Amino acid sequence: MRVNRSSELEWSGVQTFMKAPVCLTPEDLRAGKVDVAVGGVSWDGTASGLSGTRLGPRAIRQGDYISGSRHITHLGVRVNPLDHLVLADYGDAEVLIGDVEGTYENVRAFVAEILAGGAIPIILGGDHGVTWPAATAVADAYGHGKVGIVHFDAHADTAPDMQGSLYGHGTPMRRLIESGAVPGRNFVQVGLRGYWPEPPVLEWMESHELRTHFMAEIHRDGFGAVLERAVDEALDSADHLYISLDVDVADPAYAPGTGTPEPGGLTSAEVLWAIRRLAAEVGMVGMDVVEVSPPYDVGPDITALLARRAVMEALTGTAMRRIGLT
Amino acid sequence: MRVNRSSELEWSGVQTFMKAPVCLTPEDLRAGKVDVAVGGVSWDGTASGLSGTRLGPRAIRQGDYISGSRHITHLGVRVNPLDHLVLADYGDAEVLIGDVEGTYENVRAFVAEILAGGAIPIILGGDHGVTWPAATAVADAYGHGKVGIVHFDAHADTAPDMQGSLYGHGTPMRRLIESGAVPGRNFVQVGLRGYWPEPPVLEWMESHELRTHFMAEIHRDGFGAVLERAVDEALDSADHLYISLDVDVADPAYAPGTGTPEPGGLTSAEVLWAIRRLAAEVGMVGMDVVEVSPPYDVGPDITALLARRAVMEALTGTAMRRIGLT
Amino acid sequence: MRVNRSSELEWSGVQTFMKAPVCLTPEDLRAGKVDVAVGGVSWDGTASGLSGTRLGPRAIRQGDYISGSRHITHLGVRVNPLDHLVLADYGDAEVLIGDVEGTYENVRAFVAEILAGGAIPIILGGDHGVTWPAATAVADAYGHGKVGIVHFDAHADTAPDMQGSLYGHGTPMRRLIESGAVPGRNFVQVGLRGYWPEPPVLEWMESHELRTHFMAEIHRDGFGAVLERAVDEALDSADHLYISLDVDVADPAYAPGTGTPEPGGLTSAEVLWAIRRLAAEVGMVGMDVVEVSPPYDVGPDITALLARRAVMEALTGTAMRRIGLT
Amino acid sequence: MRVNRSSELEWSGVQTFMKAPVCLTPEDLRAGKVDVAVGGVSWDGTASGLSGTRLGPRAIRQGDYISGSRHITHLGVRVNPLDHLVLADYGDAEVLIGDVEGTYENVRAFVAEILAGGAIPIILGGDHGVTWPAATAVADAYGHGKVGIVHFDAHADTAPDMQGSLYGHGTPMRRLIESGAVPGRNFVQVGLRGYWPEPPVLEWMESHELRTHFMAEIHRDGFGAVLERAVDEALDSADHLYISLDVDVADPAYAPGTGTPEPGGLTSAEVLWAIRRLAAEVGMVGMDVVEVSPPYDVGPDITALLARRAVMEALTGTAMRRIGLT
Amino acid sequence: MRVNRSSELEWSGVQTFMKAPVCLTPEDLRAGKVDVAVGGVSWDGTASGLSGTRLGPRAIRQGDYISGSRHITHLGVRVNPLDHLVLADYGDAEVLIGDVEGTYENVRAFVAEILAGGAIPIILGGDHGVTWPAATAVADAYGHGKVGIVHFDAHADTAPDMQGSLYGHGTPMRRLIESGAVPGRNFVQVGLRGYWPEPPVLEWMESHELRTHFMAEIHRDGFGAVLERAVDEALDSADHLYISLDVDVADPAYAPGTGTPEPGGLTSAEVLWAIRRLAAEVGMVGMDVVEVSPPYDVGPDITALLARRAVMEALTGTAMRRIGLT
Amino acid sequence: MRVNRSSELEWSGVQTFMKAPVCLTPEDLRAGKVDVAVGGVSWDGTASGLSGTRLGPRAIRQGDYISGSRHITHLGVRVNPLDHLVLADYGDAEVLIGDVEGTYENVRAFVAEILAGGAIPIILGGDHGVTWPAATAVADAYGHGKVGIVHFDAHADTAPDMQGSLYGHGTPMRRLIESGAVPGRNFVQVGLRGYWPEPPVLEWMESHELRTHFMAEIHRDGFGAVLERAVDEALDSADHLYISLDVDVADPAYAPGTGTPEPGGLTSAEVLWAIRRLAAEVGMVGMDVVEVSPPYDVGPDITALLARRAVMEALTGTAMRRIGLT
Ligand SMILES: [Mn+2]
Ligand SMILES: [Mn+2]
Ligand SMILES: [Mn+2]
Ligand SMILES: [Mn+2]
Ligand SMILES: [Mn+2]
Ligand SMILES: [Mn+2]
Ligand SMILES: [Mn+2]
Ligand SMILES: [Mn+2]
Ligand SMILES: [Mn+2]
Ligand SMILES: [Mn+2]
Ligand SMILES: [Mn+2]
Ligand SMILES: [Mn+2]
Repeated sequence: MRVNRSSELEWSGVQTFMKAPVCLTPEDLRAGKVDVAVGGVSWDGTASGLSGTRLGPRAIRQGDYISGSRHITHLGVRVNPLDHLVLADYGDAEVLIGDVEGTYENVRAFVAEILAGGAIPIILGGDHGVTWPAATAVADAYGHGKVGIVHFDAHADTAPDMQGSLYGHGTPMRRLIESGAVPGRNFVQVGLRGYWPEPPVLEWMESHELRTHFMAEIHRDGFGAVLERAVDEALDSADHLYISLDVDVADPAYAPGTGTPEPGGLTSAEVLWAIRRLAAEVGMVGMDVVEVSPPYDVGPDITALLARRAVMEALTGTAMRRIGLT
Repeated sequence: MRVNRSSELEWSGVQTFMKAPVCLTPEDLRAGKVDVAVGGVSWDGTASGLSGTRLGPRAIRQGDYISGSRHITHLGVRVNPLDHLVLADYGDAEVLIGDVEGTYENVRAFVAEILAGGAIPIILGGDHGVTWPAATAVADAYGHGKVGIVHFDAHADTAPDMQGSLYGHGTPMRRLIESGAVPGRNFVQVGLRGYWPEPPVLEWMESHELRTHFMAEIHRDGFGAVLERAVDEALDSADHLYISLDVDVADPAYAPGTGTPEPGGLTSAEVLWAIRRLAAEVGMVGMDVVEVSPPYDVGPDITALLARRAVMEALTGTAMRRIGLT
Repeated sequence: MRVNRSSELEWSGVQTFMKAPVCLTPEDLRAGKVDVAVGGVSWDGTASGLSGTRLGPRAIRQGDYISGSRHITHLGVRVNPLDHLVLADYGDAEVLIGDVEGTYENVRAFVAEILAGGAIPIILGGDHGVTWPAATAVADAYGHGKVGIVHFDAHADTAPDMQGSLYGHGTPMRRLIESGAVPGRNFVQVGLRGYWPEPPVLEWMESHELRTHFMAEIHRDGFGAVLERAVDEALDSADHLYISLDVDVADPAYAPGTGTPEPGGLTSAEVLWAIRRLAAEVGMVGMDVVEVSPPYDVGPDITALLARRAVMEALTGTAMRRIGLT
Repeated sequence: MRVNRSSELEWSGVQTFMKAPVCLTPEDLRAGKVDVAVGGVSWDGTASGLSGTRLGPRAIRQGDYISGSRHITHLGVRVNPLDHLVLADYGDAEVLIGDVEGTYENVRAFVAEILAGGAIPIILGGDHGVTWPAATAVADAYGHGKVGIVHFDAHADTAPDMQGSLYGHGTPMRRLIESGAVPGRNFVQVGLRGYWPEPPVLEWMESHELRTHFMAEIHRDGFGAVLERAVDEALDSADHLYISLDVDVADPAYAPGTGTPEPGGLTSAEVLWAIRRLAAEVGMVGMDVVEVSPPYDVGPDITALLARRAVMEALTGTAMRRIGLT
Repeated sequence: MRVNRSSELEWSGVQTFMKAPVCLTPEDLRAGKVDVAVGGVSWDGTASGLSGTRLGPRAIRQGDYISGSRHITHLGVRVNPLDHLVLADYGDAEVLIGDVEGTYENVRAFVAEILAGGAIPIILGGDHGVTWPAATAVADAYGHGKVGIVHFDAHADTAPDMQGSLYGHGTPMRRLIESGAVPGRNFVQVGLRGYWPEPPVLEWMESHELRTHFMAEIHRDGFGAVLERAVDEALDSADHLYISLDVDVADPAYAPGTGTPEPGGLTSAEVLWAIRRLAAEVGMVGMDVVEVSPPYDVGPDITALLARRAVMEALTGTAMRRIGLT
Repeated sequence: MRVNRSSELEWSGVQTFMKAPVCLTPEDLRAGKVDVAVGGVSWDGTASGLSGTRLGPRAIRQGDYISGSRHITHLGVRVNPLDHLVLADYGDAEVLIGDVEGTYENVRAFVAEILAGGAIPIILGGDHGVTWPAATAVADAYGHGKVGIVHFDAHADTAPDMQGSLYGHGTPMRRLIESGAVPGRNFVQVGLRGYWPEPPVLEWMESHELRTHFMAEIHRDGFGAVLERAVDEALDSADHLYISLDVDVADPAYAPGTGTPEPGGLTSAEVLWAIRRLAAEVGMVGMDVVEVSPPYDVGPDITALLARRAVMEALTGTAMRRIGLT
């Protein structure tokens, strides 16, 4: 269902992601031969820092000045992803305020619906807790153990629990590994820094063979070298790639609108470059962009814009891969 | 076209006005038997103060915590307007940056489309200049001279021109009167204050028999008494009522998000009460809510919320009239 | 434990409520002969609108320019509450992100601790969901059925559930009534307006004899008259008074920093007057001030300041009652 | 020296107060036959709450949408003050960061210069401490004991000292009285509320016969009645009127941009009405508008706008008095 | 006309650019032997993204903490530009709200006036549309075809039109080339990125021999190398250099206050270095700094400050060139 | 005195620095065997740019999402500083509004108290003027001439006076050198840029042998090389190291919340790296972190967070040194 007039400026009219048509069921997706469906999880019920990510999907949907029409071209690689991919906005998963478990179940079902519709799911968070059900749904579709995750984050998100709760934005990677959905070896982590987690968790990560690239390594060797390693590891570790982008991997200067900011992170250019390369060179079957917290965003909502551009880079890379341009 | 899931929270999913279905053509409106269609004019090209009203429709669409489902009830009058009215979101008129005349023509055509679809148009501005084409389209439909306007504003908006330009947010009422679309006698103005316009314009207003209620009168006699007079004048002055609400009629404490704020204005309760009474007791064939400038709005966008509530009061009053509850 | 230097300006040094000494156990309270203990519940996990109330207690603690020393005097009644009451800051209840039920249990235990320490609890929210466990703890202490609540709010908060969850900031009054802790007849509600809840809930309220004063009544009869009625009803309805103040009872102009703002509310002066009169004329055994959402507050955090002043008015009224000045 | 083009919009070009010409010496003022000179004191070095008033004059100069041309008319009284008064912008007094005493001396000399130029000084603060030197300069010119002050404020500002310092925004009225410049009996205070000052200071005020109107009186009797009393007292108490307007006399909803906000205050309409009546009915020889703190202002800087309008009301009232319209 | 006292702090007194004296006519400029005149175009009527650049000149004028006195020294090159250049503030061009064509004509005449006064014009925007008339005026003075432009921008701004309008901030470079004022070969563009414009426009740019340096080149080769090339091309391409700086060439982290932000841009240090080198090594006959949108700026208005520093670097480079220090 | 519950989330409960226990006297420090005491100076009375640093300590204390419990680990070096150091919050020095000299004396005494308690003082400013008394107190303890300072700043802060006043945030380094407390040769300055100070001051700096590293050097040679030089110079220049960190050394993108921002500065990663290396390789006996101005901070207060992390890096480096890990 197209809900926009073709002549609309970006900030005018009903706000869907890139002014894509709306689909609400797997049948809609199949009928539209949709390649990629963007869906939101407006949820901040498992964030331990500042709240506000419940408004993330809305902000990312509307965070742009470029008309969402087909007439876009990536200036770096000269590809228009919309020439090669059919995009839809799948609306939002149902969140249940005060019911954490029910919400997580809804997210898993929501992503499963998109996959059932034949589309690649790109999930807009929401706090990082949603990666647990979202990536699980992808693993359900492609086979537990068959999916690898490249995880951009300032934080490991591998805590055994948060104050006793298994649900939380500090635990999703632990859940995925412990459930067998995504083996530890299939994880490539980029951008960790700061003062968390503690040694027992770090040891658990090593024992489960996560391939973690701390910012210290990036500052020492340069981002280009580390990205090279991450791409190689992603190619090596699994059959299918899921990208999980926590915007706090970028420095707070570039991504202030988030709930657990940590100085010393990546630049916006580095984030975008990495996403595009992974999508193009490794290919991707699912993605999430999480932890955008609009109440803390600044100026023209630069964090939501960065998140949106990351999705567009993923689309561009995916299109490049389809046309053999990697 | 419904683009939302019934279980969505207000800030989740695709943002249409009150989660109403989207219509893009008069045929859509007729097919859906739509009673009231809300449409945006994302435009600030004729604002002489601060800019930003181009984001007004987007902010008003999303300015709420109440689910847009049918399950609302006005606590003061115990009416659910959606039990009696079919509501649609008609998207936005096409604005042309840098082409003032073309934009105004588009607005007139856009409102005419809604009327052609059989629905009452409620236009979300945008700067107040859009009242010229919007109210003209309503007068086109009901007959020039047959429509009266109750105009809430801190400003008269009856300037002959703005720096030589006939187009502007300081001139729409002059244009409507001089074109014959709405005779001066059919204007009831409420809330004027401050230091503008100059005596020649005030004299012109008197000579054209506008019925202007300055804040000085309201401070002296009380809002209740002046509203009573305004309702009587509206009933007396024309066959059909168009309501034009410039949010700056409210005091900047209540409506800070606007481009030409003027201290000493109405409270939010007074604005809402007046709109509902007019819609219920006089009836209305069209409405606009203008001058919401989101870059200057504060907190949880309280100005956009007030504008949205004003539309909901108009819906409630219209429903009350339909069921004979005035 | 005093943690401040006597010469500190308000915004300097460690921020406790009014620079009161810190107590962490009932024993501390008893040892200090504390009359009133202020405690926080930094929680927004059951808010259905905008989030952010998890930062409420921090903002209210620090929202002032008056030194917290004993040297204050209420200019309206010429009473220094700290001449008559020993005040302490009891810190915060433990909130469990992602564990709603556990958090509510902790709140109940936290308030019970304060009562066990012999002090009147004043709870700083947090979303309004915390009133369920907080007021239950007070009812536990004074006897179920013996406590009445004067509830200031734009919203009834009497929903049977929120999307199926019993926990939520729209349900606490329902929970208290259905559990028998506070009978419906013991509720006096002030300030309701807007479009929520629906008729079945309103009917339930009537059938349970809640005494609800809508803003429509206040606009018609004046706040003074309605407050008079509310005071009489509070005196009539129960042996002990608990005050629950949702800051959204004030108009968004006066209390923008909240998650479910509703135009058409009370002024700051009306809120403060009402709290002081109730504390002085009826007396109070517990209180909460909820729904302050700092990410949406404006300027010098005027909503947090209003909440803080409301607590100070409660202290003043309590002191007035102790010295027989009502 | 005119520094603006006549065709400029308000926010365009060099920002002087109401686009008035600039004068920098008493000779400039005399040469231009200036009636009223507006001057700034960009100073926050003696504010005990939040800082930021050092940017007050800049914000007030630019806080408007009305062109500063002669073409303005007060809609309530139909007077254009600029038809009757020559206005100039006298720039700013020299503030010395880290040198309190030197700055106060400079303010006294700055105001004396304006008076020597034959103009009525209107001083834009800056924190309220500047009233001491500013009003002293006016008393120097008209005779100590001959000037009366109507003082709008949430606070008495009659402390004997601030942490031992005689300089401060809590002491100016004490300084003026103790120096004999303005006897206590010549003070009319309007709008006091909150929890400060303490009884000994209140007793000192009574013993010095200040005529203090607390908000409690205004809430009880209405603003109209109290304003009537204040006008009578001002006429009774001295030969010459100086108006000192601390913007925090308005409620934080109307004047959030200030450093020591206190809920429960006046509306914007009440403030403006009072200033105009005093200027028209009593006449005025000097004025200050203080405590505007732009870092805490909201939206389109509504506090600076209120301050600016207060100056315009003073100009209007002064013009009314000149033409016998009171 | 000097309108400031020598002792003023930067944020005090009347705000002209660097506290420079004001000139309003070419005669003023000639009389003052002015070398460089800064003028504003407070205009956002042709911006297709967010609005707000109408406040750009005001914000840039006041965006600093350094006293505008002669006592400044560039720490990198140890030159005080004001020792070698006479600077003036020429106020603003007349903008006509609602009259795009008239405004552009005024800008062309305004710049022509500065050139007629013998000064180098530095224009503070306003949206980038103003470069069309501004650079045309410079080309009028130096000869069409004789001026080259180094254009810093995230965007090419070479669209044939914007929704049919030739006027717009996406078209100025096209206009300049198609009118013959500045041949395509005389354009050196730096910093382009993102998803705009489309291939036909890119092809047009190539066919007109624009020398475009995309961010992709800068990320690959480093900014130093690309700047070297740009300087060489600027020296090669024309007799006279005009610099057009769209602040969005900087990353949104460094320049958030703009209407069409694009992640992945330059740092502030790179922008400033480039401007100074061009002014020093190539020399410049005109400049504009555009797209500063203050409503979206953050903190101490860091985008306006960057724009201001860019002008100061241009002054420094110009002074270096005059004294042979390149 | 511990004032927090162990289970509290960071933003919950009473806010001390890293939830450290509170000490108010040297005896408290000695009794607790405190190694490092953090104390605030909530003061902006000697800032010549924007004000607001009086709220710096409060913002830095609460600027985090990491629980202040012992369970932290620096991911780059795998050290938990709290395993090796006892930390306390020493509250704030008494600031005297309007009494500059008295405040500076209080700061000197406050730091002396911490040293008398056997702890390393880390002072949270406040404007940079406080370094004069703070570093003097350290020199008093270790011997005048025995202490060296590594001074990170965009500005030299070596002015002879500010408008005649010796007190100011532009003069502390001059005061320290001229008093003999810290010889010029013992100063290593990093990060200077912009247009201040003037040549005579620069010459004075050279004649006093300050070792100043301008940003121009860093841009030319890279930060790593310059940091190496700075560490060597620090080791060479004195027996004891005092670190003075003005947050404006970072680019405004990374540290917008400051009063005299200067584009072209360090990244957050560079600042943190430098502090940790100095603490680890040179050792430190005192530190200050100044010029955080919360009213100008953005998003989740990223400048306060950077300041807090700088303190944590200093703690980490100090712990590394204690365990021989450099
Ligand atoms: Mn994460
Ligand atoms: Mn993270
Ligand atoms: Mn209007
Ligand atoms: Mn208006
Ligand atoms: Mn509630
Ligand atoms: Mn509520
Ligand atoms: Mn005052
Ligand atoms: Mn005051
Ligand atoms: Mn551009
Ligand atoms: Mn651009
Ligand atoms: Mn410094
Ligand atoms: Mn500095």
